[in-house]
Amino acid sequence: MVAITHIGTYLPQKKINNLERTAEFSVDENFISEKIGVLNRRIKSQEQKASDLCVEAFQDLKSQTDINLDDIDCCVVVTQNPDYNLPHTSAIVHGLLDLPESCACFDISLGCSGYVYALAVLNAFMEVQGFRKGLLFTADAYSSILDESDKNTALIFGDGATVSLLENGKPGLSPICFDFGSKGKGYKNLINNGSLHMNGRMVFNFSATTVPKSIDAALGKAGLKKSNIVKWYLHQGSKYIVDTIAQRAELDPARVVFGMYDYGNTVSSSIPMLLKEDLIKMKSGEKYCLSGFGVGLSWATGIFEFK
Amino acid sequence: MVAITHIGTYLPQKKINNLERTAEFSVDENFISEKIGVLNRRIKSQEQKASDLCVEAFQDLKSQTDINLDDIDCCVVVTQNPDYNLPHTSAIVHGLLDLPESCACFDISLGCSGYVYALAVLNAFMEVQGFRKGLLFTADAYSSILDESDKNTALIFGDGATVSLLENGKPGLSPICFDFGSKGKGYKNLINNGSLHMNGRMVFNFSATTVPKSIDAALGKAGLKKSNIVKWYLHQGSKYIVDTIAQRAELDPARVVFGMYDYGNTVSSSIPMLLKEDLIKMKSGEKYCLSGFGVGLSWATGIFEFK
Repeated sequence: MVAITHIGTYLPQKKINNLERTAEFSVDENFISEKIGVLNRRIKSQEQKASDLCVEAFQDLKSQTDINLDDIDCCVVVTQNPDYNLPHTSAIVHGLLDLPESCACFDISLGCSGYVYALAVLNAFMEVQGFRKGLLFTADAYSSILDESDKNTALIFGDGATVSLLENGKPGLSPICFDFGSKGKGYKNLINNGSLHMNGRMVFNFSATTVPKSIDAALGKAGLKKSNIVKWYLHQGSKYIVDTIAQRAELDPARVVFGMYDYGNTVSSSIPMLLKEDLIKMKSGEKYCLSGFGVGLSWATGIFEFK
Repeated sequence: MVAITHIGTYLPQKKINNLERTAEFSVDENFISEKIGVLNRRIKSQEQKASDLCVEAFQDLKSQTDINLDDIDCCVVVTQNPDYNLPHTSAIVHGLLDLPESCACFDISLGCSGYVYALAVLNAFMEVQGFRKGLLFTADAYSSILDESDKNTALIFGDGATVSLLENGKPGLSPICFDFGSKGKGYKNLINNGSLHMNGRMVFNFSATTVPKSIDAALGKAGLKKSNIVKWYLHQGSKYIVDTIAQRAELDPARVVFGMYDYGNTVSSSIPMLLKEDLIKMKSGEKYCLSGFGVGLSWATGIFEFK
């Protein structure tokens, strides 16, 4: 059984304070703090590529646990802002970290649903291949594709990266089951066609209607009730979407994690960014729900147990 | 057990005849036919995107077998030349084919090793998720990133796409085991940094030394000898690399498939392009070897059995 055992994260130091931009975008402080839920966004330096963000996250991971690089059987990067389209960013990370030649590397292209999808994919891949240890990176710095004058995106997205150490047969957070889905006909609602374009209303409506159903579907597969879930980790699209999904899905608000105030929507990194601190407090037998949704349009909900 | 049951392919009609370019590149006909092994390259229209090539390949698949779209549980596109970096191309294909909302979609970013890697990933993912049917697309049209005056690439790469229908519990070609590897420190030898750049000598040397070892490793895992393999499907990088690997690995030349003369190196599509016709002639119990290598640098070798 493959489990998330440790998570390393990276947030660039440079901050943009949204509260200083209320006049520019004709919004008030309440909108910034209660609807968007992002007080500061983090911005990488221009020179930093996805692979550099991954390496920074790995340094954080290494500070938490001893890692023998020769034990790493696979290295996967989830990104839609790769260093280059060709080669895959995971190959560059492989070289930068000096991972062994036997290490399988590939990138998964997904947005906000990427972490949950990749956990399902890697769990299966590692299990079937008999792999013991894997690194799952998420790195999608939108600052390089953002139009900083676009109200729909410029107050929301922040840069960051994470790496999850996946280990077979170690105590950690393991998947029980998943629900996946796609609405490809809606792909133009969140697209990089020169710069990032988001139809905020459409993406909000999609998320608010789809995710509660996906949560029900995943719980149904697991044979669990909402009251069995210790905490809900929803993709941090904005405070308003997290609150709305929590309300529509009738989740206990005290168990719905929210924590993007100081860095923004980090796309596929949003869930592991929150999981990191909680992971070390989890107890055997506890069940958790992770749900990612967005670009595609795409969603994935997973039920996990700490074992 | 997940198996490849049918393969659809697409090659654009437009051809560039390499034999008409011997003077331009100061090469002779023998070099074109015996070293490169590409007489014609296929070129897509400028308007065609990766998703369009996928849809064309799907039409070919549909002409071979009845497909109920509602049965498709997952749709994966292997590409490093996506329609957009964001969203994933598989979402666009999902919309164009009108696949069901329950269909899991993601892209895998890999080059010439992509098909073999993706078969391993999807086999595991479908097995663990209990998925019955999946579509695995490969679509990497290099014409849009090629410098047509670059001798290292302009006589080699051609456009094309394929789709493999993967079915659980049906007769077809199923994986036994895999060998994977990466040399990320060599990533600059094959890169799109504005346009495609290939250090042909380095990529050749890497392939000629790595792939024979990978074949041995995969056979060793499977407990098989070279004489057990009915046919070898090596990535069609060029005729010279296929011949060299066959010689160094001491493969029976009569069993090493070669077939890129009329379309060129189609990257991740090169192996399924050849498998398509052979698949319908395969018999139960026969073992086959597929090996992809290139961009990354990356390689994957799989041993398969027709069951």
